[in-house]
Amino acid sequence: MKHLVTVSTLETNEILEILDSAENYRTNKQGWKPEEKMFVANLFFEASTRTRCSFEMAEQQLGLTTIPFEVTTSSVQKGETLYDTIETLASIGVQSVVIRHPQDRYYEALQEKVSIPIINAGDGCGQHPTQCLLDLLTIRQEFGSFKGLKVAIVGDLRHSRVARSNAEMLTKLGATVYFAGPEEWKDEENRHGTYLDIDEAIETVDVVMLLRIQFERHEENTSELAQNYHSRFGLTVERERKMKSHSIILHPAPVNRGVEIADELVECERSRIFKQMQNGVYIRMAVLARALQPIERGLNNDNNYQKCYMVK
Amino acid sequence: MKHLVTVSTLETNEILEILDSAENYRTNKQGWKPEEKMFVANLFFEASTRTRCSFEMAEQQLGLTTIPFEVTTSSVQKGETLYDTIETLASIGVQSVVIRHPQDRYYEALQEKVSIPIINAGDGCGQHPTQCLLDLLTIRQEFGSFKGLKVAIVGDLRHSRVARSNAEMLTKLGATVYFAGPEEWKDEENRHGTYLDIDEAIETVDVVMLLRIQFERHEENTSELAQNYHSRFGLTVERERKMKSHSIILHPAPVNRGVEIADELVECERSRIFKQMQNGVYIRMAVLARALQPIERGLNNDNNYQKCYMVK
Amino acid sequence: MKHLVTVSTLETNEILEILDSAENYRTNKQGWKPEEKMFVANLFFEASTRTRCSFEMAEQQLGLTTIPFEVTTSSVQKGETLYDTIETLASIGVQSVVIRHPQDRYYEALQEKVSIPIINAGDGCGQHPTQCLLDLLTIRQEFGSFKGLKVAIVGDLRHSRVARSNAEMLTKLGATVYFAGPEEWKDEENRHGTYLDIDEAIETVDVVMLLRIQFERHEENTSELAQNYHSRFGLTVERERKMKSHSIILHPAPVNRGVEIADELVECERSRIFKQMQNGVYIRMAVLARALQPIERGLNNDNNYQKCYMVK
Repeated sequence: MKHLVTVSTLETNEILEILDSAENYRTNKQGWKPEEKMFVANLFFEASTRTRCSFEMAEQQLGLTTIPFEVTTSSVQKGETLYDTIETLASIGVQSVVIRHPQDRYYEALQEKVSIPIINAGDGCGQHPTQCLLDLLTIRQEFGSFKGLKVAIVGDLRHSRVARSNAEMLTKLGATVYFAGPEEWKDEENRHGTYLDIDEAIETVDVVMLLRIQFERHEENTSELAQNYHSRFGLTVERERKMKSHSIILHPAPVNRGVEIADELVECERSRIFKQMQNGVYIRMAVLARALQPIERGLNNDNNYQKCYMVK
Repeated sequence: MKHLVTVSTLETNEILEILDSAENYRTNKQGWKPEEKMFVANLFFEASTRTRCSFEMAEQQLGLTTIPFEVTTSSVQKGETLYDTIETLASIGVQSVVIRHPQDRYYEALQEKVSIPIINAGDGCGQHPTQCLLDLLTIRQEFGSFKGLKVAIVGDLRHSRVARSNAEMLTKLGATVYFAGPEEWKDEENRHGTYLDIDEAIETVDVVMLLRIQFERHEENTSELAQNYHSRFGLTVERERKMKSHSIILHPAPVNRGVEIADELVECERSRIFKQMQNGVYIRMAVLARALQPIERGLNNDNNYQKCYMVK
Repeated sequence: MKHLVTVSTLETNEILEILDSAENYRTNKQGWKPEEKMFVANLFFEASTRTRCSFEMAEQQLGLTTIPFEVTTSSVQKGETLYDTIETLASIGVQSVVIRHPQDRYYEALQEKVSIPIINAGDGCGQHPTQCLLDLLTIRQEFGSFKGLKVAIVGDLRHSRVARSNAEMLTKLGATVYFAGPEEWKDEENRHGTYLDIDEAIETVDVVMLLRIQFERHEENTSELAQNYHSRFGLTVERERKMKSHSIILHPAPVNRGVEIADELVECERSRIFKQMQNGVYIRMAVLARALQPIERGLNNDNNYQKCYMVK
């Protein structure tokens, strides 16, 4: 079954296949679309505009039918397990679920048991595979390949869903990764990059990938943090001037304007921030197609409920 | 107008017609679908995954257009009556409403006044007609008819929306109904069955219909209740072994695993729990078709607003 | 770009064009529909049944695809600005946004900057242009034109989104406007009408336009307010008898029955309250068509993200 729960388990060729498929949807407006109605549901247990609307758009572009599911009005309120929720949806005819969940690795126990593919739209401080893939797509559109590229990932490395997967994947694909950011947010476990001083990093790399400060996950006095952060580790107007002429800026958004990046740089010529969002739709189309195409061909479309586990 | 607010007011032949229509949607993938766009809205004033998603799926399968309606973002927050909400929806073109509401018999004052059919998706501790109908469909698929069948309804009989309607309908259709469960949850007003000891009931019947303990409606110490309940009245692995070889298990779900039923029995060979959910979609298609078909034929499509009550 | 943020900036001929377009959708079931999929999103930061469902219905009737957006589950929770939310939606392919927001004139800073048209579905105590337009449509259907008509606007003039725009537009179109209501709710800034005693107003005019008391925005003892209000300023059964034979009643709804209007008058022969709701769908179709048609023709469909503001 074509779950997508993490990028780490994808082979290099699988990653490139997804990028090619996304690029195909983008440029030719071509690619797989189901011949008959197919059904998905989006289960968002955490706030999200970008990711959620992006999946909804991808589903509509593919011609899928989305069954609305709101956590606040669901039986999850009655204490139903995620497994039972998914199997309930499967039994009524939903053929894949997109899930964002606050718990790290929520998918681990599930992926062997559920009868429809799970697409992970973010788990706690863990993975966010479609974000990683859309970052890769945006970089490849710019530079053609990853070999020899230098990428700086800047900011709250420890709490970021994006930093770990991106560092791992970029390294795997041949890029060199640097990290920069506050001492207290270093991620010692992430061995796919080298720490550099912020100013050195900015001047060195082809891609400056800024991370979002997740104020909602920190307890410090946030206005002080914000102000200090910008001058110390943010992409200020001064720092942007020192970037190489061809270098680009990425940010997963939502942006804290004036914190990770100067307000006036969000839509500057180097910025690919809105381009990333646009690419997000094509990546999600590719990932949904990857999950649903085998089902359309009947390969795991054996939702033969009642599932029959024998009881001795 | 083809409201469906309770099963009690349905004639036997009407019940069988709905079951036949549902079976037709299921097996032949055939049955009525509207020729032009038709519009419905789902008004859920209480949490629900199964019922709500099941109606959404049924609507999509029929090719209906669902106008989103969220209680939390609606004028219900401004104190609007249910009647005015329904007539508002009718006036903008909604042709039928599916309603779940915490108030028993919320539909009583409404059904004579509103201008579009109401499909009751559950009222307080009252009725849940589509649940009853999907239970009947699941039983008929197994045994071909209801005559002579023995059915045990087990659990919180007093607070269950399902118990009363099911007992009444099964009796009407020729089955014999037994009840089992805690003394304090007996429903003295329900005269369509006989109380039996849980173990005797389990060994006797063709269908063991478990009820959900609605922890959210009880005040007792729930973990104590849960533990005692399973050994005293739950379907344990031991009890399951004493069921007749052909007997089946039903549960309206969401299941409290390890309480009403042992965890490992939820998906056992006898269980029709996920089958019930699947049947739920077909039943809802049948019920929606029953409400909307006459409107399509113009039979009550006279939404000639402004309605003109003369004032003397 | 064809924003619709206020009616005040519309020329008379633009107003009449929108009314004609709406009438065309209503009577001939004709008018513009997009040839390919087009995408909109509804951003409701305040409760609303009527307006929201009406826009959803208008979108469905036009064959648009609505991308679901719920404030409670969005990044607005993470402090994202409205501008960034809109540009995010634009970058994933949304082509117009419908916005209701509690802040007066939220659109002012936005309308010059965003890359897709905004349709204002109500801002604080400010504007509600589609409500104004549907009121105008309902009046024109009745009387053919506005010249020489007398209209009374009755009630909470100071807090009403409707009163100011309607008075201004009706005056512009040739009608004479009167106001009536409690002293403390007079709106001294509104110079498009003359204050009259309630009983005099009722007997004089062709259209009695009642305003909703927004109990949720007042602090007084509301039941006392309600009772006094009805006898002092409400449309009682007695007052209705003194209306001219051809006069009609409007109310933007939701109605507080027995307060602004006697319960039994809500659906009386003179009432156009549900007719207004019906017209609301056609007005919104016209307004959406006005925003989207130029985009379909490629006139502002240059969503060429990344937008490139040069940074010196």
